Amino acid sequence: MDPAKTRTDQLGELVQSIVDGRRRLHELPAELSAEQAAEVRRRAVEALRGARLEHTGEYSLDAARAASRHCENFVGISQVPVGIAGPLTIRGRYVEASEPVYVPLATTEGALIASVNRGCRAIAEAGGAVVRVEDVGMTRAPVFRTSGVEQTEEFLAWLAANEDRVRQVTEGTSRYLRLLDIKTQAIGTSIYLRFRFASGDAMGMNMATIACDRVVRELIEPETGVPCVALSGNYCVDKKPSAINFLEGRGKRIRAEVQLDAEVLGGALKTDAAQLIEVQYRKNLVGSIAAGAMGSNAHFANVLAAFFIATGQDVAQVVEGSMGMTCVEPTGADGVLASIFLPDVPLGVVGGGTALSTQREALALLGAQADPERPGAGSLRLAEILGATVLAGEISLLAAFTSGDLAGAHERLGRGEAGR
Amino acid sequence: MDPAKTRTDQLGELVQSIVDGRRRLHELPAELSAEQAAEVRRRAVEALRGARLEHTGEYSLDAARAASRHCENFVGISQVPVGIAGPLTIRGRYVEASEPVYVPLATTEGALIASVNRGCRAIAEAGGAVVRVEDVGMTRAPVFRTSGVEQTEEFLAWLAANEDRVRQVTEGTSRYLRLLDIKTQAIGTSIYLRFRFASGDAMGMNMATIACDRVVRELIEPETGVPCVALSGNYCVDKKPSAINFLEGRGKRIRAEVQLDAEVLGGALKTDAAQLIEVQYRKNLVGSIAAGAMGSNAHFANVLAAFFIATGQDVAQVVEGSMGMTCVEPTGADGVLASIFLPDVPLGVVGGGTALSTQREALALLGAQADPERPGAGSLRLAEILGATVLAGEISLLAAFTSGDLAGAHERLGRGEAGR
Amino acid sequence: MDPAKTRTDQLGELVQSIVDGRRRLHELPAELSAEQAAEVRRRAVEALRGARLEHTGEYSLDAARAASRHCENFVGISQVPVGIAGPLTIRGRYVEASEPVYVPLATTEGALIASVNRGCRAIAEAGGAVVRVEDVGMTRAPVFRTSGVEQTEEFLAWLAANEDRVRQVTEGTSRYLRLLDIKTQAIGTSIYLRFRFASGDAMGMNMATIACDRVVRELIEPETGVPCVALSGNYCVDKKPSAINFLEGRGKRIRAEVQLDAEVLGGALKTDAAQLIEVQYRKNLVGSIAAGAMGSNAHFANVLAAFFIATGQDVAQVVEGSMGMTCVEPTGADGVLASIFLPDVPLGVVGGGTALSTQREALALLGAQADPERPGAGSLRLAEILGATVLAGEISLLAAFTSGDLAGAHERLGRGEAGR
Amino acid sequence: MDPAKTRTDQLGELVQSIVDGRRRLHELPAELSAEQAAEVRRRAVEALRGARLEHTGEYSLDAARAASRHCENFVGISQVPVGIAGPLTIRGRYVEASEPVYVPLATTEGALIASVNRGCRAIAEAGGAVVRVEDVGMTRAPVFRTSGVEQTEEFLAWLAANEDRVRQVTEGTSRYLRLLDIKTQAIGTSIYLRFRFASGDAMGMNMATIACDRVVRELIEPETGVPCVALSGNYCVDKKPSAINFLEGRGKRIRAEVQLDAEVLGGALKTDAAQLIEVQYRKNLVGSIAAGAMGSNAHFANVLAAFFIATGQDVAQVVEGSMGMTCVEPTGADGVLASIFLPDVPLGVVGGGTALSTQREALALLGAQADPERPGAGSLRLAEILGATVLAGEISLLAAFTSGDLAGAHERLGRGEAGR
Repeated sequence: MDPAKTRTDQLGELVQSIVDGRRRLHELPAELSAEQAAEVRRRAVEALRGARLEHTGEYSLDAARAASRHCENFVGISQVPVGIAGPLTIRGRYVEASEPVYVPLATTEGALIASVNRGCRAIAEAGGAVVRVEDVGMTRAPVFRTSGVEQTEEFLAWLAANEDRVRQVTEGTSRYLRLLDIKTQAIGTSIYLRFRFASGDAMGMNMATIACDRVVRELIEPETGVPCVALSGNYCVDKKPSAINFLEGRGKRIRAEVQLDAEVLGGALKTDAAQLIEVQYRKNLVGSIAAGAMGSNAHFANVLAAFFIATGQDVAQVVEGSMGMTCVEPTGADGVLASIFLPDVPLGVVGGGTALSTQREALALLGAQADPERPGAGSLRLAEILGATVLAGEISLLAAFTSGDLAGAHERLGRGEAGR
Repeated sequence: MDPAKTRTDQLGELVQSIVDGRRRLHELPAELSAEQAAEVRRRAVEALRGARLEHTGEYSLDAARAASRHCENFVGISQVPVGIAGPLTIRGRYVEASEPVYVPLATTEGALIASVNRGCRAIAEAGGAVVRVEDVGMTRAPVFRTSGVEQTEEFLAWLAANEDRVRQVTEGTSRYLRLLDIKTQAIGTSIYLRFRFASGDAMGMNMATIACDRVVRELIEPETGVPCVALSGNYCVDKKPSAINFLEGRGKRIRAEVQLDAEVLGGALKTDAAQLIEVQYRKNLVGSIAAGAMGSNAHFANVLAAFFIATGQDVAQVVEGSMGMTCVEPTGADGVLASIFLPDVPLGVVGGGTALSTQREALALLGAQADPERPGAGSLRLAEILGATVLAGEISLLAAFTSGDLAGAHERLGRGEAGR
Repeated sequence: MDPAKTRTDQLGELVQSIVDGRRRLHELPAELSAEQAAEVRRRAVEALRGARLEHTGEYSLDAARAASRHCENFVGISQVPVGIAGPLTIRGRYVEASEPVYVPLATTEGALIASVNRGCRAIAEAGGAVVRVEDVGMTRAPVFRTSGVEQTEEFLAWLAANEDRVRQVTEGTSRYLRLLDIKTQAIGTSIYLRFRFASGDAMGMNMATIACDRVVRELIEPETGVPCVALSGNYCVDKKPSAINFLEGRGKRIRAEVQLDAEVLGGALKTDAAQLIEVQYRKNLVGSIAAGAMGSNAHFANVLAAFFIATGQDVAQVVEGSMGMTCVEPTGADGVLASIFLPDVPLGVVGGGTALSTQREALALLGAQADPERPGAGSLRLAEILGATVLAGEISLLAAFTSGDLAGAHERLGRGEAGR
Repeated sequence: MDPAKTRTDQLGELVQSIVDGRRRLHELPAELSAEQAAEVRRRAVEALRGARLEHTGEYSLDAARAASRHCENFVGISQVPVGIAGPLTIRGRYVEASEPVYVPLATTEGALIASVNRGCRAIAEAGGAVVRVEDVGMTRAPVFRTSGVEQTEEFLAWLAANEDRVRQVTEGTSRYLRLLDIKTQAIGTSIYLRFRFASGDAMGMNMATIACDRVVRELIEPETGVPCVALSGNYCVDKKPSAINFLEGRGKRIRAEVQLDAEVLGGALKTDAAQLIEVQYRKNLVGSIAAGAMGSNAHFANVLAAFFIATGQDVAQVVEGSMGMTCVEPTGADGVLASIFLPDVPLGVVGGGTALSTQREALALLGAQADPERPGAGSLRLAEILGATVLAGEISLLAAFTSGDLAGAHERLGRGEAGR
């Protein structure tokens, strides 16, 4: 840029160059700060489209970080309202029952947080939710092309004989990565190698991708002569609902349950065991099967989406993360054991959007952060909290059906009368 | 509150009452403004958990609206970085090829916007994407309990005979709602009535719920004596991947395609027809089937999540919205016809989070707003733009696999070197 | 053949010509009877492989018919043991409760018929099974190739405008065929037209295929210029498990139910309501969902396979026919309502293997035959009987689990001690 | 029976007692031979229903065996026409390319055998099909009920600590059985243990059931105190289409492929590479995904059903056995590599219906019999032959679509003009 010009003039010229079509949005001078570049882009598209991006430009996050690591052609932010549900009582391995947990949820869906909140209260009254998380690991599955069954056999034999070397190369790309195993599948001339990695406190998708890339290029292709057609062969499976992830798991596999006696059911949840089991049966079980739905739950996705946005997870992974099952089973005298099962929840407390300003605050509020002394514990704690929150959302919504609350809440919301 | 106290004192006492457990987060005095209530809650959980919610409190949206309609226990916002992809050329019914469309995307996933942007460029060079949208309508399916096959027959006969009255009652709940049809299914003693409504420029889920609630309580239950067990019987199906939505559609059904000749393929996309078809075959088709995935695409979910957050849609609906298929088929001399099919995209330009500050700006940038002269046109325009954006993301990622770009991009991002 | 030679000599020479590789199995002289041709083939493969086909040649069916219509390179028969379950009490539209129905089942699986028989007894004691059948119709879905979205729109517009002509041409191929509707789907450049036909007492697959072939060649291709790539585009869907058939139905859609009180449960079935519901819940519902199974039942396939072989149905259609759901729901004091739902059962009483000797006898035993006065009634009666038989098999097996009978029965069978 | 009466009188009285309702079909005196009992039953139901079971009584199989081990209330047989396809050239581990294999198929579906036969010819001309079979093993999955997550953890810990004892008990039930592994899944309070066994030349379902029963009753329940609710929890999964079997395999996992050059394509198959790939793409791939079908093939089920009936397999297992994928991929100059993948084929050469007269002959014709020197080799050979036969059927039908042969063949069959 010409130093003689004022800053405003300079930016104005850049804006004009975009408006005139002489420059594309990502072709701004490197010396511009992220904030300046964002301003130029906002002004350019405002001029081009006659719209205003005023609030979008009102941010407090670290623009340089956002622009360089998270969001190309950065112009500002989307402001997603955040509310808090809780306190939630969790009897986990990484959360003590004595800790009151407050869960930040980012959503625009009225009634959601109120509903989760009610579930939290029921769980607290019931003495807490028992939660267990398995660290299944992150998967990535490159696909290769062979000349047929016979080369496929040779390829798989090579792999079996060179497992240690494959491990070395993949693990050499990051000190946080550990190769757990490789599940293979061959169909026609395609071979899928589903690598599964432990990735500590990170969700791990990028680490897994980089590790697979390295081992494919440096070891597998050169030694076998079998070409890799795509680093992801959709056998991973990232961000799609899939049977393989449901069955094998991916990321964290979460189970949570709570024992609800008649008092809690009739109190916080305004329902009873028989009605809750009836809704569970006709809606979550029979209805889901009849609809050809994958899994059987009431609204896991709502809670995951709000939790993922608030805590800086990869929101598109809600697609796979929200697969799962709810169970409501009779116990004792008029009580139920309500539980949820989430086989495929990719999440982490480092990497991805977790270092951004508000997201980092949300993780701090949850006490879910990486601790060098206990690698992986932060993400397991986060998963436990998520599991209990999903459970809270589930029992509350199922109970709402039994008391016919659902539409009423939405009607009041439509008039802006609900919540605060 | 005691008027003698200073504001700070007053808020401080409220904070303390929450910290002491004397008050729950939603039990704040009604006279507090939304901003004040948010501040009290932030300070309370900060005190309770030793965390800071500084950036979370930095918002410019309308807190009163957010707190009353979208987000109970409101404390502030999550700042999600927004970047812009485009210009995108669309040959639709609601977007002209001559309009340069700039698409705001809210994401923390580095490389995503750059990738979509590259796809936009290829589409522009190819003369634009042809997009068509069908307004399938919003569905809601209450479940009823009968005493068996015979009562089920009577119930369904009543429904057939009273279709007009059902229509009147449901349509009476909103002047924007039109009942399209009711698909019935009976299994065991459960009957599912899948109501399908046109809902104009709104996504329509709440409107459909309210309409179903009304007709169930006022007409169906009283006249048939058959009780409704849950207003949603998971045969709707909201926010779950399901065969019924894949086959019947829900919300908008979107098709988009672009003809890419050898020049465009070799230029913006750095690939060729043979390689692109090969990746499509082994990844999207064979890989998806092998994994038991629902649908067959590379990363619809990424684009939908970023688009939904930016434009104020219900983010949990990415789960169903991202189901769909990509096709890449050879055409002419070394060209391909690339296309996407999205059967189940619920979206709108009014209602939900669309009126929030940054979200409204995003919709304005897209020119997707409700127009009383052309009801529904705003949401159809939005769906066309989404379809073309998904297509852009898809061809770009498939091409990236062929040139081995994927891991490299992520490695650079990890070091903060990519994008701006 | 040379008339001077004896018959044996002549056949011997033919046998030798096959053994020597001068003649293939289907290249026998037209003047040979079906029996002679079968003998030649048997002797030839016996010579070639050193095996004996003695029992295979022991048949009483009409060889000429079998060889010309059902089974090329006919050599004889497979003898599948047939047993009879019943009497079964059915309260249907085509079977009266007063008729004792005896069901022939062809199977080699020991304990199956005994189990179904026990279920029949329980049903009889319970006053009969209520069965209802919907005649959904037979489907066939040719797939066409267009040049893209725009030609697809034109094609579908043509179809909408020419529905009557399409009906005329298809219905002109058989006086038993009636076109019910055409469900369309377009993905990429492929269009699927799912024709649905009523086909009276025939299962209808061949009739539907012939009708589609005619209308495609004579009307659709010539007028639209859009080529048909395959007469079946797997959107029909014949002989595969599929969501579309589960949801839309195909052939007959069958529902059957029986009210079992505590006495019947404790008597014939040696179980009680609580146990039966428990098995149903953990096995048919949760287990099926967990396994990613399509539908949720205990062993529909066993009953369908045995019924289909015995009555001359297309046995490969057991694949789709056995999809479905079982429900066991508490009623009254310690009773249950057990029911089955089969959405996709292709069957008939004319055509296919129904005219073969033993198969015709099985249909006669069931009183399920075509009646010119009541077209379609024969196949509906057959479907009602099948539905009740499936229900009998289901309640009996579920009950067996509760009493731990299953393995014991198989152990006794292994020693040849069971049954008679 | 009274010795003074003539045989006919005696049987006549028994017949009458059934007709009068004094006796049920299975309540015949033990001293009756299987043939006599069958005659009594036939006459009784003939009298009751006014039908004739003449051909049903024309059998040459060993009635005593059939009645005691395979078919309760035995009355005779169903005669299913058998034809022979081949010779088929197989390059397997258990079949040599030099052996001409003739495949008996039992079917009533006209044109099927002719079609498979054409495929066999193409395979022979192409030098044979390469086939490989993995012996995945037979599975059975009992379901248990715990009190919740904590007892589930204890139970699984017990299982891990007692694997050797579990192995000993299960393997103690048969010298042919070997426990391969146990895959566990816990959902709500249900635990599924999917036992996987090698079962030599037997299909193994009954052996697996007996072994599971033993270990559950004698070891698992007594030591853990956790009750087994059902010996099969539908996580096995027997005779249902399921994702778990598709992904994990069951029985035999079969892959077969053949390289077809332009000459073979244009000769025996009357097609070319481009057309075959086109049908494969639009029908097997896109069509199957669009229909929500499990797997993607043209008609595996037809071949399996005919092969299973002829060789005495459990025909209901066609449901799971026919899941799978076909691939047709371009190779060299205008050639294709056609292949099939069948992940879940339960079969055997001992046990089940394999010892019955005609079924035993079919297995002998195929040279697929148990050999004490090479345990398991017989069933692996059978699986190789099945794989090649399925491949033959698949390429032939796909080719038929390209030449528009399909409907024509069925029209000729309808007039009895086709085949011989």
